[in-house]
Amino acid sequence: MIDPRTDVSITSDGNLLFDKAVKDNVETVWHRHEAQQPQCGFCDMGLSCRICIMGPCRVDPFGQGPQTGVCGADADIIVARNLCRMIAAGAASHSDHGRDLVEVLEAVSKGEAPGYKIRSEEKLRRVAREYGIQTEGKDVLTVAGELADAMMEDYGMRRKSVTLVNRAPEKRRKVWEKAGITPRGIDRETSEMMHRTHMGVDNDWVSLLTQGLRNALSDGWGGSMIATEVSDILFGVPAPKPTMVNAGVLKKGQVNIVVHGHNPVVSEMVSKACISEEMLALAKAKGAAGINLVGVCCTGNELLMRRGIAMAGNHLMTELILSTGAVDMMIVDYQCIMPSIGKAAACYHTKMISTSDKARFPGMEHHEFHPDNAEEKAKTLVKAAIENFGNRKQVYIPVAPQEAVGGFSIETILGALGGTPAPLIDAIKAGKIRGAVGVVGCNNPKIKHDYGHVTLIKKLIENDILVVDTGCVSVASAKAGFKVPSAIEMAGPGLKEICGALGIPPVLHLGSCVDNVRILVLVSALADALGVDISDLPVAGSAPEWYSEKAVTIGVYCVASGITTHLGPMPPVTGSMNVVKLLTEGLNDVVGATFGVEPDPEKAAVFLIRVIEKKRKALGLDSRTV
Amino acid sequence: MIDPRTDVSITSDGNLLFDKAVKDNVETVWHRHEAQQPQCGFCDMGLSCRICIMGPCRVDPFGQGPQTGVCGADADIIVARNLCRMIAAGAASHSDHGRDLVEVLEAVSKGEAPGYKIRSEEKLRRVAREYGIQTEGKDVLTVAGELADAMMEDYGMRRKSVTLVNRAPEKRRKVWEKAGITPRGIDRETSEMMHRTHMGVDNDWVSLLTQGLRNALSDGWGGSMIATEVSDILFGVPAPKPTMVNAGVLKKGQVNIVVHGHNPVVSEMVSKACISEEMLALAKAKGAAGINLVGVCCTGNELLMRRGIAMAGNHLMTELILSTGAVDMMIVDYQCIMPSIGKAAACYHTKMISTSDKARFPGMEHHEFHPDNAEEKAKTLVKAAIENFGNRKQVYIPVAPQEAVGGFSIETILGALGGTPAPLIDAIKAGKIRGAVGVVGCNNPKIKHDYGHVTLIKKLIENDILVVDTGCVSVASAKAGFKVPSAIEMAGPGLKEICGALGIPPVLHLGSCVDNVRILVLVSALADALGVDISDLPVAGSAPEWYSEKAVTIGVYCVASGITTHLGPMPPVTGSMNVVKLLTEGLNDVVGATFGVEPDPEKAAVFLIRVIEKKRKALGLDSRTV
Repeated sequence: MIDPRTDVSITSDGNLLFDKAVKDNVETVWHRHEAQQPQCGFCDMGLSCRICIMGPCRVDPFGQGPQTGVCGADADIIVARNLCRMIAAGAASHSDHGRDLVEVLEAVSKGEAPGYKIRSEEKLRRVAREYGIQTEGKDVLTVAGELADAMMEDYGMRRKSVTLVNRAPEKRRKVWEKAGITPRGIDRETSEMMHRTHMGVDNDWVSLLTQGLRNALSDGWGGSMIATEVSDILFGVPAPKPTMVNAGVLKKGQVNIVVHGHNPVVSEMVSKACISEEMLALAKAKGAAGINLVGVCCTGNELLMRRGIAMAGNHLMTELILSTGAVDMMIVDYQCIMPSIGKAAACYHTKMISTSDKARFPGMEHHEFHPDNAEEKAKTLVKAAIENFGNRKQVYIPVAPQEAVGGFSIETILGALGGTPAPLIDAIKAGKIRGAVGVVGCNNPKIKHDYGHVTLIKKLIENDILVVDTGCVSVASAKAGFKVPSAIEMAGPGLKEICGALGIPPVLHLGSCVDNVRILVLVSALADALGVDISDLPVAGSAPEWYSEKAVTIGVYCVASGITTHLGPMPPVTGSMNVVKLLTEGLNDVVGATFGVEPDPEKAAVFLIRVIEKKRKALGLDSRTV
Repeated sequence: MIDPRTDVSITSDGNLLFDKAVKDNVETVWHRHEAQQPQCGFCDMGLSCRICIMGPCRVDPFGQGPQTGVCGADADIIVARNLCRMIAAGAASHSDHGRDLVEVLEAVSKGEAPGYKIRSEEKLRRVAREYGIQTEGKDVLTVAGELADAMMEDYGMRRKSVTLVNRAPEKRRKVWEKAGITPRGIDRETSEMMHRTHMGVDNDWVSLLTQGLRNALSDGWGGSMIATEVSDILFGVPAPKPTMVNAGVLKKGQVNIVVHGHNPVVSEMVSKACISEEMLALAKAKGAAGINLVGVCCTGNELLMRRGIAMAGNHLMTELILSTGAVDMMIVDYQCIMPSIGKAAACYHTKMISTSDKARFPGMEHHEFHPDNAEEKAKTLVKAAIENFGNRKQVYIPVAPQEAVGGFSIETILGALGGTPAPLIDAIKAGKIRGAVGVVGCNNPKIKHDYGHVTLIKKLIENDILVVDTGCVSVASAKAGFKVPSAIEMAGPGLKEICGALGIPPVLHLGSCVDNVRILVLVSALADALGVDISDLPVAGSAPEWYSEKAVTIGVYCVASGITTHLGPMPPVTGSMNVVKLLTEGLNDVVGATFGVEPDPEKAAVFLIRVIEKKRKALGLDSRTV
């Protein structure tokens, strides 16, 4: 039996809503996780292979049963192939998200996307110049069209490398060149990864993992980076804004609409519809005080970053938010949307809406959004949500919302520093800020909800380490109160001084999970300013509660970019000590960074602090012994 | 224990060499298959999921354990996602093979690929025109460059559909349009498939499988078709040539070089080096009577089709061929190369060489081929093979080779018919030829080697059904003696009459496994001539011994193209009766064709004959009761 107080969450809304869900007979992710125990040890170690139907095969980790599959692949090959397919799926997911944005950008340029527009002409022109496009004297839509076209080429096979790798420090690009991992085309690297993992293609675990690095880089400096840049161009470059977080952001007297998923293409149109006079009048006519749009998961982060829209919860909260009975409509796009939530919603009055041609779900109504109809569709849906307000039964919103500040784009951060990373570098040099860690990733029922994130971040800021976060982590840390300026009280003295002077919290919300690329841009700026490689910087990454293939890919592109990265849950690689050693040691010789795996966040903090102090020492900065 | 007489192969070289391998302590695929028994039932039914690390998860097929994974995905979703990832991997593999050829074509156009040239200018210009390229007055290399460029666009995301879908009958294109499965970009469909199968994206098994169809079509009418067309352009359009097959093609007194893999880019250069005066002289100087180049697997088929080069064996023979002790060098490129063969070769003097940057193997020396160095590399390798001739120990070549005819490109077939499919159609209308079946695919140790292929083909030709075959099947049927003109004696009276008149065997070798697209071109020509859709024709497909993900994709693009297809081994879908029903019944309403699964080739023949007779009846041709 699951005991909510010890097993489920460190958050009160999480635990209280879990109790409510249980009372209402709503099955949750924790129940299903419990029902799956014990999970298959072969799969867990990466030792089962289903790549061809001479199999399925299993390698015996104890050395007594078979040591190779039917084809002859041994544990190293099988583990590497399985991991590489996770990378391919993660890269494909982020990059396909980016593709959708590029298509909207193209439609905007052709005047075929009513409701969408270029919100940041400055960024459009800047990025276009990075793509070698002459922008002077050209009108904004022409530039948009040319940029969309140039970005589409990054998805193809005609380029020698994806364009935005040029943003990386020169030293880093040379590392990639030497290792043969400069990504060529975005989709190309995914396809080649799938090809190499077919039976009888690449059967060298080093060679496989090398392509894994290239595939991940095609995401980080390709598809994901395009996703973030085009989102900023279309919806605005984020700037700090106050907001509210946790289940308490749902409002009893208002129509509550929750957006869930990842791509702002849908949620931005919904947000626009929610503030229209027509809809507000309709809501009032139906007895509601207003329309309350909130987010969960990363499309929520997109809205929070740009509009200050409140955030109800992260990955493991998505079912529990429904059990408030207060959600009149949940609109989803894609990624990380548990197929269970239609069933959970069926216990309440909540209308569930799917919107992407790529993603349908059981128990949801499908209303397909395209650039040409999104504005209209959004209005229709908001109207239907308002109509559904009257169908509410019992509502349970167990907590008051927590304040937070989000919206730290790199443009904003550098702007606040006076247009240059110099003040940040000075603080690092002076040892007031020891370094920075990007804490990213998901939730996973294998770890108590938010425990990994909050424990780790607390420890890091206490040790004068600036934290930047994205995705599900950013919700956890906001709920924990790390994202108000007064949170500097929880920071070490140096970090407190600097953040206090700048008026910022010690944990900066950088966005959704595709926005991890903002971290790449930031560290590139720091490295360039110092004239060093990214791998020389006192920075690190961490994914304390990751669960998804996208997270694998993010971890790999971070490491390949020179950022040593901690993982909480163990990836399915323990079946091959060769693969484990390459990931945790060997990669140091190739890309100057490695993975470290540690489920205990207290110990993980020590690992990360050691990484940072070691980098400080190597840079000739003062260092502490941990 | 494996009993070779009952378990291993229906071929004498297979059985005799298996005995030899056992005597020499060479581990074979059959040993490893036996060691893997019992194979995991969850994986076998498609019911285990490793897509995220909230899992691994398993759905209990008996309904007592969990019915969903941790995310909430049920059996239908899990089975569909797993199958779709197989399709993605297969499509990626063929298409990446095509990509390599397009890059060689581009290099040729720039004069950067010494040794390669345009061998079929006629086909180059014809295909270029299909791509909308103005060819008149342009020199051959300019056209080649423009065609390479246009084909690269098919891999990108800027097109609304891949170009060569225009080869399909109009009725078929409308079917695809209506079902929303017209493939857009080659790599794009693979990426989108990987995205959709990520946790929380597409959770509708129908929607998933629909994208599976589109992804497979992006291979069949995209990557694979490009692979075949560019191979013909670079290496020549195949025309009928006599050849020899089985292990007896190895020669005691000559330097034996075996090429293995799929892409003619390597094997063509090796074949060129083998016939050079310099190499022949060197071989003679080392005491060899000559240089004997033979193939295994599909790169062997490529050489057989264009040069009449002999074929030593198919998939399950690759280890056994080494156990002859007669192979001085095996040169591999990629796909279906068992990672075990380096170990098998280590028992003999055989030098094992890998050549592709995408595919390394244990126990092989790596000599990387690129367009600019391939000609030189091939010479170096042939020289090394000659040097190795003297290191041979005991040689055992247990059989005499079997004669066969290969090289039936569609151009050749139509040419033989006088430039039009009319005579073939007349024969079909007259009921002399009842219809045609493409028998394709691999070997699989789950089925006695070549039993499925040979038994099925024998039955089909007895029933006046013309057989076209590719890949590993084509080797099996050639070894069985079906590919000599006198094989008409095994055919039914009608087929015997027609093939006799044309001087062709009743089983036509169409090429390697990417060359299955020749079947698509042929059936399109027949459908156009009759003014019907492909699904109206009295034709069918069969993969009696398939094992690979590529075979899954081929099967799916055949069905999506309107060709009902039989599979010998069951794909891992039995965990979802919804998926099974869609594949075996429901697809009929979508694409006018379905899958049928039947491991027994005798029964499969009945299934296929019924399909053909039913189509005949619907077309108003005479039909027989089966």
